[in-house]
Amino acid sequence: MIKIGGNVVDNPVALHQFLKEFAGIDGHKILVHGGGKIASTIGRLLGIEPKMVDGRRVTDLQTLRVVTMVYGGLINKNIVANLQSLGCNAIGMTGADGALIRSDRRAATPVDFGEVGDPRVVNSSLLALLLKGGFIPIIAPLTLSDGGGLLNTNADTVAQSVATAMAPSFGVELCYRFEMQGVMDNAGALIEHIDEASFVRLREDGTVSGGMIPKIENALKAVAGGIQLVKIGATAIR
Amino acid sequence: MIKIGGNVVDNPVALHQFLKEFAGIDGHKILVHGGGKIASTIGRLLGIEPKMVDGRRVTDLQTLRVVTMVYGGLINKNIVANLQSLGCNAIGMTGADGALIRSDRRAATPVDFGEVGDPRVVNSSLLALLLKGGFIPIIAPLTLSDGGGLLNTNADTVAQSVATAMAPSFGVELCYRFEMQGVMDNAGALIEHIDEASFVRLREDGTVSGGMIPKIENALKAVAGGIQLVKIGATAIR
Repeated sequence: MIKIGGNVVDNPVALHQFLKEFAGIDGHKILVHGGGKIASTIGRLLGIEPKMVDGRRVTDLQTLRVVTMVYGGLINKNIVANLQSLGCNAIGMTGADGALIRSDRRAATPVDFGEVGDPRVVNSSLLALLLKGGFIPIIAPLTLSDGGGLLNTNADTVAQSVATAMAPSFGVELCYRFEMQGVMDNAGALIEHIDEASFVRLREDGTVSGGMIPKIENALKAVAGGIQLVKIGATAIR
Repeated sequence: MIKIGGNVVDNPVALHQFLKEFAGIDGHKILVHGGGKIASTIGRLLGIEPKMVDGRRVTDLQTLRVVTMVYGGLINKNIVANLQSLGCNAIGMTGADGALIRSDRRAATPVDFGEVGDPRVVNSSLLALLLKGGFIPIIAPLTLSDGGGLLNTNADTVAQSVATAMAPSFGVELCYRFEMQGVMDNAGALIEHIDEASFVRLREDGTVSGGMIPKIENALKAVAGGIQLVKIGATAIR
């Protein structure tokens, strides 16, 4: 299972290069993609200014419409068509399709992020059915609320939840791809391994901060959930 | 198999009423949805004026991005989430997903409709896999070109192609739902039955015209393709 973020999704050359590499991977595979700046760009054109708190998007109902269009439609279907042209039998979906990922709407305190959900349960039998049928699932970061609405969901968390749900039936490796070589220290050198104990130190001494903290937390959750190998770029999490 | 058009898709009350009815239908079922005015509305907000020739949309590359967002994302995923809330295990897809519908790019003469395709082959095994797994496919009218691009495709034709492909393995009934009670004569009365011979007369004497002609042609193709029952509203095609 590979997760790609906005830096790949936003760059057609990097995306095509990555998809060629992905198409060449043997065996069962699943791709989770993030959103990228294109949702903000299209939202602005539609008159919706992006609202961010602590670097995370606030999703009001108008913004939910935009990310449903952009993540579930534009990005997901272009990735699928691109992979099909590379001979990879991709099938795109969101967490609403076949109730793949049911989520809890995030509490409105301390920050009300709006139409945002945290995954609660993954329908791994749908993914197993597709994988065994020879299909490659491509998952957009939208999930299904109990009320039957769509919720915007962090793509790193989607990847961790899906990987963990597949772990009892498959040997799962999870890789977070992003713009850096891996998790870097303050001297710009790659940190080769991170575990629970070293993460506490790296956070306390400020070596890791910002968006890297939830990324490592998701990776450590995946390790705790029984994933064989978790990587953030070239950094192994264990 | 049921196909709904823009008049249902554009009206949230009518759409929810239809989806309640659809959720209540027993047995295997597939829904094909059209686009509606919302693609034009969103396209205009993004600065793309809709271009129509003979009542059909010309799909340039910018318009293809809009319909990919709106048909494959916004409309498809809202229908899926709505059906999930009604206890119907819907799974949304376009013709690109799992190479469900491969199409031929329409010739540029006499009218160049741009990124538009006519279905050539349907991967009925994907639909059979999903139906037997308890899932309800919801299909947006986008298809896959041989070059691996997306193509905009008439939803009536998508419904006819998919229904015909399923006919060898399933007893298929195909219903085109639209804003009228069925095919009407010039006195405003319902025409209860249409076959190849009566269609020729109805077209010659002007009883049917405009967009109703390709709709009846699609229905007659489905009859020729072995569909048990084809209906345009309350009008039976045989």
